[in-house]
Amino acid sequence: MTKNRLEAFSDGVFAIVITLLIIEVRVPIVEKVQLNHALIELVPKILSFILSFIIVGSYWVAHHTMMQFLEKVNRSVLWFNLFTLLTVAFIPFPTALLGEYPYEKTPVILYGISLSLVNITGTIFWRFITYKKRFVKHNLSDSFSNFVTFIHLLPVLFYMLSIVFSFISITISYIIYLLVPLFFILPNPLILKRIKTAYNE
Amino acid sequence: MTKNRLEAFSDGVFAIVITLLIIEVRVPIVEKVQLNHALIELVPKILSFILSFIIVGSYWVAHHTMMQFLEKVNRSVLWFNLFTLLTVAFIPFPTALLGEYPYEKTPVILYGISLSLVNITGTIFWRFITYKKRFVKHNLSDSFSNFVTFIHLLPVLFYMLSIVFSFISITISYIIYLLVPLFFILPNPLILKRIKTAYNE
Amino acid sequence: MTKNRLEAFSDGVFAIVITLLIIEVRVPIVEKVQLNHALIELVPKILSFILSFIIVGSYWVAHHTMMQFLEKVNRSVLWFNLFTLLTVAFIPFPTALLGEYPYEKTPVILYGISLSLVNITGTIFWRFITYKKRFVKHNLSDSFSNFVTFIHLLPVLFYMLSIVFSFISITISYIIYLLVPLFFILPNPLILKRIKTAYNE
Amino acid sequence: MTKNRLEAFSDGVFAIVITLLIIEVRVPIVEKVQLNHALIELVPKILSFILSFIIVGSYWVAHHTMMQFLEKVNRSVLWFNLFTLLTVAFIPFPTALLGEYPYEKTPVILYGISLSLVNITGTIFWRFITYKKRFVKHNLSDSFSNFVTFIHLLPVLFYMLSIVFSFISITISYIIYLLVPLFFILPNPLILKRIKTAYNE
Repeated sequence: MTKNRLEAFSDGVFAIVITLLIIEVRVPIVEKVQLNHALIELVPKILSFILSFIIVGSYWVAHHTMMQFLEKVNRSVLWFNLFTLLTVAFIPFPTALLGEYPYEKTPVILYGISLSLVNITGTIFWRFITYKKRFVKHNLSDSFSNFVTFIHLLPVLFYMLSIVFSFISITISYIIYLLVPLFFILPNPLILKRIKTAYNE
Repeated sequence: MTKNRLEAFSDGVFAIVITLLIIEVRVPIVEKVQLNHALIELVPKILSFILSFIIVGSYWVAHHTMMQFLEKVNRSVLWFNLFTLLTVAFIPFPTALLGEYPYEKTPVILYGISLSLVNITGTIFWRFITYKKRFVKHNLSDSFSNFVTFIHLLPVLFYMLSIVFSFISITISYIIYLLVPLFFILPNPLILKRIKTAYNE
Repeated sequence: MTKNRLEAFSDGVFAIVITLLIIEVRVPIVEKVQLNHALIELVPKILSFILSFIIVGSYWVAHHTMMQFLEKVNRSVLWFNLFTLLTVAFIPFPTALLGEYPYEKTPVILYGISLSLVNITGTIFWRFITYKKRFVKHNLSDSFSNFVTFIHLLPVLFYMLSIVFSFISITISYIIYLLVPLFFILPNPLILKRIKTAYNE
Repeated sequence: MTKNRLEAFSDGVFAIVITLLIIEVRVPIVEKVQLNHALIELVPKILSFILSFIIVGSYWVAHHTMMQFLEKVNRSVLWFNLFTLLTVAFIPFPTALLGEYPYEKTPVILYGISLSLVNITGTIFWRFITYKKRFVKHNLSDSFSNFVTFIHLLPVLFYMLSIVFSFISITISYIIYLLVPLFFILPNPLILKRIKTAYNE
């Protein structure tokens, strides 16, 4: 089995998920005089679209990075990847929910759980392919493998924190949701150096 | 004609189908106090999304496996593949139906028929490309070709069983629908060994 | 510029169009006792989905065939291809219209016009890339180029016929719409031989 | 990291956006005698679909051109590309808005802003990859890099003009929106020659 089709299929799913997010921002059907007002009410939906686009984008970059180290593919690898994609494909639903009820606690909690599931399935995928270096190059160091695991699980901590804060202040929850991808977007010399070293070893 | 575009197009269709499934889980528009209740009512839809995601995933893996043995492509191969994709592309409809009416007999029956059609068209596709080894490598054994046919048709038996049971207990129908993909996900040494042997011969 | 991205992008558009067609077959929201009746009323929509799937499938196969002869790509080639894809991307609308109003004249006429536009833009694309053999291999014969043009324009004649017949009997219109793709699906030794000869020359 | 997956993912997003545009042209549900009238009322939506298809098409061609010069990919390149795709993925919303309210000022303005954002993020992407020739071939001339920047920012000027004119005559706004892609579709010897020279140097 080829890594090529695994990547093409995953890219397809990521591309569709990231583009479908806008579908939920529906054009309001109102009287013309109310149009501007109705459009302003759409702002939370547009913001939740942008937030999820950035988060799905960071998942795509993370997937891209993991794939660099993948060297062999078998049926189990396909399935672990599919379970990660299952959690990615689910994101449009909590995103739309957040856009519809931006000030409610439940959508904020479900959003955090949904994102956490992506990180958790992604981590399981990573542990599976690096376990005994069965599907990655044999000289990949354990410390790097553990480092990637740590980087994948760290956001779960923040998402959990965001869920806890939703009981106190939803604004803080949103700030946390925004900070997590920023942490991955901003060039992080520490992360970049470790990936590069692991890849060139 | 190249196998490459056939795979890319099929991957595209599979990726879109598997991602579109979530589209049918629509955000409920209710009063804020009723939101949690409305979300609980969505659980059957989310479960039918997960079930169909896994089933479409197993079809993708099966397609992937068949493609490994394909060596030549002509117009007829494209068309037999297209008819398989037609039945795959249809899945979102019975899935949405099942999510909307989870306790009704008709959706359970249509779901089983819809899945059976994928297995049947997939089997026809496989028989066509392996017939007289016209489109697969010439040393592919007949016994392996028959084994794949058997593996593809076996689920139809279970889907038929599930349809029959829907007249007695829909719960049993659901259990059968869930068991079929599990059978393909769980590493099955017998299947894996035969595929590997056939591929390396 | 590479032919590769042109193909990948076109495959993407074809795959999405062919999969989106099912989206228009929406799950009916009715009382449980009326479900079976409501599902029977969906039959025209399902048939128009199947019809359009087969027609878009035959366009994809035709595109695939044309691409085999393409050897160079420039901006103009991208644009002529894009205009063909524009007409392909439009198909889901007349398909949904046909499914909603299967016994009305206007949808039948619009469907024929929509399909004709794909054939016409496809022909223009073909004439452009074969004109003076600028973008195809230099030994492609004029007679083959004209033969492909003929094969691409022939369906337009039938679609026009179907439109004319819609004023007399819509059933005949449907039969014609179905016959055209069948003509392309069934192995046609004449067409296949000419394509093969042209490709191997 | 490979340029290959960056292109495949971007092609996926472009293909989905360009195909999703038609989704917003929904089949009218009316009495049969009113169907023709209802279809005529859809004309603005169909025109806005065609306009956006052409504009997204020209963005795809522009992206294609930029990619020709890209030689290296790192995480930052992925992110700058993702931000460009974010603005592309947003286009279906203002397109649908324009189709729903074709004679209102606000949709015309939002459409211009939305398109401008694509050009601006695209320009930032281009400046980033050409800055100090970090991600493009080292002999790419500064004058060519500036020329591409100019070509990317020129439409923003026209979109701004279109926004200003929307306060006087929306018809003029539409003419401007149509002229911009025409400028890119029609073979422009000046642009083509410069791209070719830069690529072959």
